[in-house]
Amino acid sequence: MMLPRIGVFDSGVGGLTVLKAMAEQIPAHYFYFGDTARLPYGTKSAETVARYAIGATRFLEAQNIDLLVIACNTATALALPLIKEAAHVPVVGVVEPGAAMAAEVSTQRAVIVIATEATVSSHAYRDALQRHGLEAYEKACPLLVPLVEEGWTEHPVTEQVARIYLGEAMAQAPGHADVLVLACTHYPLLAPTLHRILPVQMQIVDSAESTARAVRQMLREKSGCHPERSEVTSATERSRKPALSLSKGNPLPEGGPPSEHRTFRFYVTDSVDKFKRLAARFLGRQVDNVEHVDLGG
Amino acid sequence: MMLPRIGVFDSGVGGLTVLKAMAEQIPAHYFYFGDTARLPYGTKSAETVARYAIGATRFLEAQNIDLLVIACNTATALALPLIKEAAHVPVVGVVEPGAAMAAEVSTQRAVIVIATEATVSSHAYRDALQRHGLEAYEKACPLLVPLVEEGWTEHPVTEQVARIYLGEAMAQAPGHADVLVLACTHYPLLAPTLHRILPVQMQIVDSAESTARAVRQMLREKSGCHPERSEVTSATERSRKPALSLSKGNPLPEGGPPSEHRTFRFYVTDSVDKFKRLAARFLGRQVDNVEHVDLGG
Repeated sequence: MMLPRIGVFDSGVGGLTVLKAMAEQIPAHYFYFGDTARLPYGTKSAETVARYAIGATRFLEAQNIDLLVIACNTATALALPLIKEAAHVPVVGVVEPGAAMAAEVSTQRAVIVIATEATVSSHAYRDALQRHGLEAYEKACPLLVPLVEEGWTEHPVTEQVARIYLGEAMAQAPGHADVLVLACTHYPLLAPTLHRILPVQMQIVDSAESTARAVRQMLREKSGCHPERSEVTSATERSRKPALSLSKGNPLPEGGPPSEHRTFRFYVTDSVDKFKRLAARFLGRQVDNVEHVDLGG
Repeated sequence: MMLPRIGVFDSGVGGLTVLKAMAEQIPAHYFYFGDTARLPYGTKSAETVARYAIGATRFLEAQNIDLLVIACNTATALALPLIKEAAHVPVVGVVEPGAAMAAEVSTQRAVIVIATEATVSSHAYRDALQRHGLEAYEKACPLLVPLVEEGWTEHPVTEQVARIYLGEAMAQAPGHADVLVLACTHYPLLAPTLHRILPVQMQIVDSAESTARAVRQMLREKSGCHPERSEVTSATERSRKPALSLSKGNPLPEGGPPSEHRTFRFYVTDSVDKFKRLAARFLGRQVDNVEHVDLGG
């Protein structure tokens, strides 16, 4: 069995929530690129973000990926069409899968979207949700990312901040909103806190889970069956170097079918140590295969 | 009377606390450059920070400044010698003035330094304080900048966060520490909150006030008298364009001596509107003369 090779691109560590959700659902080799030296993307122009993202795309394509996931809300919101145009593999962003899942879940056709300031300003979620016939109220929550990165995911301060933000959002959103979209890849780590605060009738949709579902669906369509049992072929396959020589990470459970072990490789443009420290928090386990790369700029 | 022309460089808005402290003490024309498109500098290498800072230095020198203030802790900590080497005007950083003032104020010869993670990792303050014979305990407070930028300077959440950070710092610092150094240009906005929390015997030294004092001192030495009454001359003076045609900002009080009105000009590499919004919070008044500039990269 040949596992698919999935590239995951983010400006930093947030995309690890998307990686985690995919890894739980899709056996694959994963190549994660975190552009940690140039984050945050939120303050940068669409042209600059596209240039950075396309540089990362080239790097990941050189790892012979079959599919590229843009696990970064800003890059998706500002540059997805340009990335798709530049890429030689199928590309999945995080916005449309989140909007599609919100559309499935919401019976009231009204949702609240919480995100960073940059994502809210882009209105990418509002537009995507409108295409699904949903009314959206977007609320910027700039303190939540720093709180997650500080490791205060289960902390009274974070709960208090979340109460303030959600209180403001619910005061202004349509009263019948029944879904909260977590439109930032850091926020899934706050889901337990948010569940405690939200009215019981409100459901949470997060971009990590919904993107993992979209990727699984795409692989299934590509192969005509479940990716778990599929052989994904691609134009780059002939030139592949063996992955096993570099393999660490999770082997499949003992007693399973003889198969290629899946591997996880991480590439970052800034400090490897800082990435490892944060990654452990996001993935719930230590990561080893982290390499520093320099794409210039 | 010819006012001195002072360039102020920061990665963003934090340096405005330094500008404010200087403007209260030193009549001058101020040229503020905020590299908002490339912040934060804290995660970047010394070489990259130096390259950005030198680009900004060139830009400010083209405004015929007499003196350059590096109002950014990271740029000072990582790149001050390189900036000094590249500049054609005298350069003042924020670290040494803060350390010098702490050395004057502390009777116990032991201080606590609070700063961003990047500044703490550089140990620039610890080293500067040691040169003054002071023992220093450095504590990173990553949530304080986002809290200030969210505008929560007088907010129960901020007080709670500050209590946690200072509690941790005081538990580990030498028991006789009698000065708290605010080693981040955002923190002066939190001084009232910090004063409420600190033991009464602890004094606060901030880099804005101390840098303003160092600049006043430097201008005084340069001119042999108070800058308020001085004429600062420089090599660039012959080529100066008249500043008054662009003048807005604070005229001197009515009834004062006939003099050139001081002016404030702001240059930013990212959104002008976002800078204006944050600047109003830092300066306590609206700013008008904000221009977008693009230095590439």
